[in-house]
Amino acid sequence: MKKTSAGNFFEDFALGHIIHHATPRTVTAGDVALYQSLYGPRFAIQSSDQFARALGFERAPVDDLIAFHIVFGKTVPDISLNAIANLGYADCRFQTRVYPGDTLTARSEVIGLRETSSGKSGVVWVKTVGINQRAETVVSYVRWVMVRKRAAAVSRRPPVVPDLPDIAGDIHVPEGLDFSRWNFDLAGSPHRWGEYRAGERIDHMDGITIEEAEHMMATRLWQNTARVHFDQHAAEKSRFHRRLIYGGHIISLARAISFNGLANAGMIAAVNGGSHSNPTFAGDTIYAWSEVLARIEIPGRMDVGALRLRTVAAKDCPCADFPLRDGDGKYDPAIVLDLDYTVLVPR
Amino acid sequence: MKKTSAGNFFEDFALGHIIHHATPRTVTAGDVALYQSLYGPRFAIQSSDQFARALGFERAPVDDLIAFHIVFGKTVPDISLNAIANLGYADCRFQTRVYPGDTLTARSEVIGLRETSSGKSGVVWVKTVGINQRAETVVSYVRWVMVRKRAAAVSRRPPVVPDLPDIAGDIHVPEGLDFSRWNFDLAGSPHRWGEYRAGERIDHMDGITIEEAEHMMATRLWQNTARVHFDQHAAEKSRFHRRLIYGGHIISLARAISFNGLANAGMIAAVNGGSHSNPTFAGDTIYAWSEVLARIEIPGRMDVGALRLRTVAAKDCPCADFPLRDGDGKYDPAIVLDLDYTVLVPR
Amino acid sequence: MKKTSAGNFFEDFALGHIIHHATPRTVTAGDVALYQSLYGPRFAIQSSDQFARALGFERAPVDDLIAFHIVFGKTVPDISLNAIANLGYADCRFQTRVYPGDTLTARSEVIGLRETSSGKSGVVWVKTVGINQRAETVVSYVRWVMVRKRAAAVSRRPPVVPDLPDIAGDIHVPEGLDFSRWNFDLAGSPHRWGEYRAGERIDHMDGITIEEAEHMMATRLWQNTARVHFDQHAAEKSRFHRRLIYGGHIISLARAISFNGLANAGMIAAVNGGSHSNPTFAGDTIYAWSEVLARIEIPGRMDVGALRLRTVAAKDCPCADFPLRDGDGKYDPAIVLDLDYTVLVPR
Repeated sequence: MKKTSAGNFFEDFALGHIIHHATPRTVTAGDVALYQSLYGPRFAIQSSDQFARALGFERAPVDDLIAFHIVFGKTVPDISLNAIANLGYADCRFQTRVYPGDTLTARSEVIGLRETSSGKSGVVWVKTVGINQRAETVVSYVRWVMVRKRAAAVSRRPPVVPDLPDIAGDIHVPEGLDFSRWNFDLAGSPHRWGEYRAGERIDHMDGITIEEAEHMMATRLWQNTARVHFDQHAAEKSRFHRRLIYGGHIISLARAISFNGLANAGMIAAVNGGSHSNPTFAGDTIYAWSEVLARIEIPGRMDVGALRLRTVAAKDCPCADFPLRDGDGKYDPAIVLDLDYTVLVPR
Repeated sequence: MKKTSAGNFFEDFALGHIIHHATPRTVTAGDVALYQSLYGPRFAIQSSDQFARALGFERAPVDDLIAFHIVFGKTVPDISLNAIANLGYADCRFQTRVYPGDTLTARSEVIGLRETSSGKSGVVWVKTVGINQRAETVVSYVRWVMVRKRAAAVSRRPPVVPDLPDIAGDIHVPEGLDFSRWNFDLAGSPHRWGEYRAGERIDHMDGITIEEAEHMMATRLWQNTARVHFDQHAAEKSRFHRRLIYGGHIISLARAISFNGLANAGMIAAVNGGSHSNPTFAGDTIYAWSEVLARIEIPGRMDVGALRLRTVAAKDCPCADFPLRDGDGKYDPAIVLDLDYTVLVPR
Repeated sequence: MKKTSAGNFFEDFALGHIIHHATPRTVTAGDVALYQSLYGPRFAIQSSDQFARALGFERAPVDDLIAFHIVFGKTVPDISLNAIANLGYADCRFQTRVYPGDTLTARSEVIGLRETSSGKSGVVWVKTVGINQRAETVVSYVRWVMVRKRAAAVSRRPPVVPDLPDIAGDIHVPEGLDFSRWNFDLAGSPHRWGEYRAGERIDHMDGITIEEAEHMMATRLWQNTARVHFDQHAAEKSRFHRRLIYGGHIISLARAISFNGLANAGMIAAVNGGSHSNPTFAGDTIYAWSEVLARIEIPGRMDVGALRLRTVAAKDCPCADFPLRDGDGKYDPAIVLDLDYTVLVPR
């Protein structure tokens, strides 16, 4: 009996099927230091136990994106090893903060299936849930990918396409937090929630060049096994002749770069959607800009509000003039990420 | 008096001499995260405190190879700084698991010496023992290296060559472990000990390309000071014109790659022998395959058995057809590791 | 209102002004492991909890330079984002050891200002203090940098230039330490304080080549945001066409390399001054040598003494003949660091 897995093909997915993903993962201070060293974030909540405790956390939680990357990584061997394209995310909600010592596992439910007309592949929608050792949901999201069929054939199964929200569900502020104790000096910016307005655009200025060692170290840290990130020997025969960088690497870089302008946006409440509009490779220099899409009041809270943001990352293209789309409405070839997400900011 | 050490030469080793190696090393969660990020292992025991505790561990032990690399690294300044070649290992046994917080030291006894006929060098056999802060043996092994003489001369000392076992001694299952509580879903494979048979071969499929920054970060993490790994300026005048990659780096990569096919082989009990048959350099892509050499019952245990494995790593050469030797019985030039070791697998 | 900061210009600094730098930082075992992996130090105090406890530490403190780099990194966005040149350090004293779990913050006082005759820039002197969560001073130092003006203009303000000591103030031995319990075998060298003599020079022998990924990972770990280290796209249009390596990266490399010859110099008491005499780039191989400038008794201590050292780092230039200056007294182009500092050594 064959002991290795070549991953699931489109035919292997059944609606309603729940997949328990392998390799539970205890998060540690080592992961936090590596995240710091690979991306360079400066948000105070995740950087300082003292700062976090002053707000009501038990200590500094790990970056929200660490939880996302770990949960996402677990799904790769089952969901996307045979993916042709990662098509999108939706309704990603960070529900419980993760501290060093917590152990994460993940499971996914197949919630949509649609064959492509060619008969060679199909789109699979999964709802993935990451849980901690107390069975609390840490993060949940929907993702859809185009997956190869094992054998080309048209089955004429009726497509099932889930209804997905444009904006993630309820904004969750963890219990027991009081943002009125926010220290703006230590956080690095005086700008409160009320000072941001819809339509405002911010050039985050800094550029960071990516090296092969960095994106591979990051992607292995998340136990993500997608081959396109690691195997140059195979990549040489591929379309790009290069290892592709994990899209989440760009999200984390853009988020770290966004500190200059969004220093008080220390927590991500949700990711509403995102597009990896062009691939990135080692040697690319990533810049970013953001637009405030909406300022959202949180019911019952005068200490904290939410901002819905778009953060756009561009390669080899400083963002002083906010590049996005060309005249035909297509993404500019420099644009590598267009992320729609919601952050918490002290009022 | 000269304060620096240029390492020991063949003349400096005396039979029965015990060398206490420098720099005790406390292992931490930081080492575990770096190991994760440099190699990408997914074995559940070392990844999850919860999974490990369910089996009877106090928490997730560190990867067995972390202990090996740290102990090996300590020996380099005393044993192999003037080595011409690392000739072999034998009888390597993992006897006590290492947890973050443990402090490792190492000592070596010279157990064999044989001059080469040229009079320019000699072979030194050492038995190395790594111990923890409770003076428990963590790992022990025999290693032999060809070491330069300070001055060419034939001393006609009779050679002393130790008798070494083909297979490492008793297989040690740590006390208090119960593998009947193994969670096959979380571990990532349904295949029990009894499903593997001698002669079975497994292509582990994945390839990982090595970068200079990665192998140097790993080798420094182990406080291994062998100059050939770090100094490109000197390497340019050497035979290969490149920095050589520490052989243990390839062992760890091959072990991580072997997860696909050996996901339940979560613990290494012993290394019986190994050959670094060709050098590796940054830019090489490592693939691996394994052969089951033997299925071994462990006396008194119905919950766990051992598999003696050969894992072979090849550079720039996918392993679907199990490359190993050419027609003359020599290693194929792509083969960079041929490791004979014993793992524990739930029954 | 503009939310991003482009850093302070010369006009923004006022004598006596105190700047509270952003982003408090909790130091962890993850930082220690990354430091180990990026530089390869082997000093026993920082490597082993057991070794450190035997001397009276509560456990292994983190490397003194970790504290320096973190504190320095915090000052960059406020002090040197618009620096043309880092001109010097003085009177850097390590006053309280840092353990994993400690949280560091930093503040700087402007203690000197002098416009350059061109009217385009000025020199700013700051005294920076890093403190821990108990408000104890961890490290303090004076640094001066040449900073661009926002607009060229000569203001004819009288220059204020602080009086700085050639050698840092009182040597501080942390309370409760007893160096008579030093284990020379474990530390890796038999050489006591009394065996070093002023004028003695030591070639540290080893060379380490630097990779882009390494210096960027280090510099991000310290939350240092100076753009010249990270942005290859912008660097291509700059004078060197390359990313510049953070000077502190070279200090840490030279310090790690100096172990071979200075294994018992396990603690830095002070940095008296230093010069980054030439820039370094990825691909450079760093070598180092040291000279004993003075042997200093510590009042009331028979267990420990101090050595004032010069450690010189050279790129692509082994240091057997102690390179430093050319015939005109200028630094040899290979010299990248000339550091004057004081270490503690058991007597």
